[in-house]
Amino acid sequence: MSGKGGPDHPIVVDPESSRFFRLPLDVRLVEPASGSQGATYPAGFLAAGVVGGLKDSGRPDMGVLAVASECRGTTASAAVFTTNAFAAAPVCVNQTECDLDHLLAVAMNSGNANACTGEQGLGVARVMQESCAVGLGIAKANVAVGSTGIIGVPLDEAILAAGIRKAAQTVVPDGGPAFEHSVMTTDRFHKMCALDVPTVDGLVHLGVCAKGAGMISPAMATMLCVVTTDATLQPAGAKNLLKAAVDTSFNRITVDGEMSTNDSVFFIASGASGVSLSSEGLDQLGAALDAMLLRIALMMVADGEGATKIVRLQVAGAPDEPTAVHVARAIAGSPLVKTAVCGEDPNWGRVISAAGAAMSGKRLPHASLLLGGVKVVENAAAFPVSESDNVKMHAAMKEPELDIHLDLGAGEASAEIFFSDMGHEYITINAEYHT
Amino acid sequence: MSGKGGPDHPIVVDPESSRFFRLPLDVRLVEPASGSQGATYPAGFLAAGVVGGLKDSGRPDMGVLAVASECRGTTASAAVFTTNAFAAAPVCVNQTECDLDHLLAVAMNSGNANACTGEQGLGVARVMQESCAVGLGIAKANVAVGSTGIIGVPLDEAILAAGIRKAAQTVVPDGGPAFEHSVMTTDRFHKMCALDVPTVDGLVHLGVCAKGAGMISPAMATMLCVVTTDATLQPAGAKNLLKAAVDTSFNRITVDGEMSTNDSVFFIASGASGVSLSSEGLDQLGAALDAMLLRIALMMVADGEGATKIVRLQVAGAPDEPTAVHVARAIAGSPLVKTAVCGEDPNWGRVISAAGAAMSGKRLPHASLLLGGVKVVENAAAFPVSESDNVKMHAAMKEPELDIHLDLGAGEASAEIFFSDMGHEYITINAEYHT
Repeated sequence: MSGKGGPDHPIVVDPESSRFFRLPLDVRLVEPASGSQGATYPAGFLAAGVVGGLKDSGRPDMGVLAVASECRGTTASAAVFTTNAFAAAPVCVNQTECDLDHLLAVAMNSGNANACTGEQGLGVARVMQESCAVGLGIAKANVAVGSTGIIGVPLDEAILAAGIRKAAQTVVPDGGPAFEHSVMTTDRFHKMCALDVPTVDGLVHLGVCAKGAGMISPAMATMLCVVTTDATLQPAGAKNLLKAAVDTSFNRITVDGEMSTNDSVFFIASGASGVSLSSEGLDQLGAALDAMLLRIALMMVADGEGATKIVRLQVAGAPDEPTAVHVARAIAGSPLVKTAVCGEDPNWGRVISAAGAAMSGKRLPHASLLLGGVKVVENAAAFPVSESDNVKMHAAMKEPELDIHLDLGAGEASAEIFFSDMGHEYITINAEYHT
Repeated sequence: MSGKGGPDHPIVVDPESSRFFRLPLDVRLVEPASGSQGATYPAGFLAAGVVGGLKDSGRPDMGVLAVASECRGTTASAAVFTTNAFAAAPVCVNQTECDLDHLLAVAMNSGNANACTGEQGLGVARVMQESCAVGLGIAKANVAVGSTGIIGVPLDEAILAAGIRKAAQTVVPDGGPAFEHSVMTTDRFHKMCALDVPTVDGLVHLGVCAKGAGMISPAMATMLCVVTTDATLQPAGAKNLLKAAVDTSFNRITVDGEMSTNDSVFFIASGASGVSLSSEGLDQLGAALDAMLLRIALMMVADGEGATKIVRLQVAGAPDEPTAVHVARAIAGSPLVKTAVCGEDPNWGRVISAAGAAMSGKRLPHASLLLGGVKVVENAAAFPVSESDNVKMHAAMKEPELDIHLDLGAGEASAEIFFSDMGHEYITINAEYHT
């Protein structure tokens, strides 16, 4: 569609129709027509995206999302950042020089990640923050920043300052799509969503604009995401909702298995709906937020570099959840598993071997494994597959979405993770695209 | 050469000439002519390999290595096994029903890993052990077993018993090569080595026969290795030497990043030389053993599926060695790093990002990075590369052996790891080869 940097390859899984996506009862997905509003769908938000001049392609590369001035008194926010030890300059500035509980705007750029740029980079991130604040007439500390693009290249401070200020000065109520467009890098399709969420306390709305395809694209970095609601929240409530939703969405997907230097998720509640949420209402909003971010996360997997399939991997029977997640990540990150899925080969020995390596030093005599709903392992030994089940399993391997279910037989905890396969297209993009 | 299951691809790095391989002073590498004796080069060992009938190809698939009868009273041994939670039946039998301190023989088969085979598989491994013991006229407990090949397929007990017994009854003093040949699966070249080791206590010899290409080959599994010496050792001494050598060789390489269900290394000292080693002599033998197993490990990386390059990655400046190893493994296992190396692209952002993800939650402001000897990062920021250094770096990326040096700037500990790149050939072998 647009913003695409790599070679062409088909989008096999349509995120709109993924069977892995489930909305809570009563929550309504705003259809693409108005849904493309993304983060400006909830009331109280303005946004813009501009051509600032960082990208040689001349595509939009800077954007600002802001809370409407009349809502500045009712805003609450929260943010989650990468834990990468080489966190980029904008991440560092957000963490140390930002009132993350009371964000009134987020300024972003694509084309340069401002990562591994040292003191100069920190200065640039501060200028970015300030340019947005000046453009909107708010305090610097209420502006968060995010960057995505090439690592280790100094960012031109003057160009960035001018573009961000221009974006801040031109924000409009339906600017969500333009904002989202301005942060795309190798993304092949837009990643936006909007929900109507009826709660016991009244109707509120959720919106999101995001970018991300592969945890790291060729020489590019990052997942950036801005989530909005017009509900009235407290910072602590926003934080709890965001953390829970990120834990079951962005923290449960893997394309390359790495957390980039720039990953950032922002959540701002404008309070424009006038609806204050009770404990029950918060739960309802939380369930809708979980579903929305999972949808965006699935879009990122579907847009994974060279991806031809999405796998939903469930690891059950673990002694505790961290162990379940650890095993799931090991399987999802195994090149042997990823290539077998790409080859539509029910080579379950690779899944078992990856799981066993992750559970090093233990014994799992009660483990079982299902591929595409067909049992292939029981009590840690091969389970005889009937001819009809074999046909069923091979058919499941050919689908764009595949289920793998591993029960470790060692407890009650479980975890679910989504990952993409790995084929020639992945190599073409990552080995043949030169920096 | 032989025993090859996958498509043809060139062996880029000649293990004989690897610049990563260094012998201790005075130790002599026995040249290929006699070096091809491998594990039967040291005195006091006999071996054989036979066509047992497990492989459809009709190639040799069963072998036995045994201590000469006159040395049975002076033998000491040690073994190291995979810690995979789904350890194969032969590994389990070795660990529970074997006197690993006093091994007199090792029986092996290729073509079937006897993994994920449940109780039936344990029974087969016991029969394998017994057939060898009967054939040699020794006790069952003095025989270790090893299998490699397809996972989850029952092994025919009668065929295995007959073949192993035949091999045991036909062992000869120069049977090392035939033994090694019988355990090859997708290996593209032989993995043997022999050393003359002058010690302060007298001349002793080391030999090795191994198989392994990729931690797991398509539907195959495993690294199997038998090391021999004619020195007189105690079991505790043998154990110390083996553990130290494995830690700096097989535990420091990665092709796919996984430890298979069957990995096993056996070390047997026949005592045939009559040379008992002092503490200083043990150190000398240990240094030679370290070098020999690193040579075999490098051969395995060079034979990695689809490998076109070997990378030596040094991670220094870590707070402790486990951290250094953890970071090194994360980088070595990163598909983004492996594809960049394949594409000869000095995309150091991928190395930094992988290292930063592995050091999640920390900050590394003093980190530096060298690619092919050229500094690209200093104090966690991009370091300006001169034009001549840029030419040097790009030239280094094109060599079959590449050096990457990362200093975390956070301590004194370091680790070294060797890994192969990942390109289209890897995908072809692993995604297009069907089970």
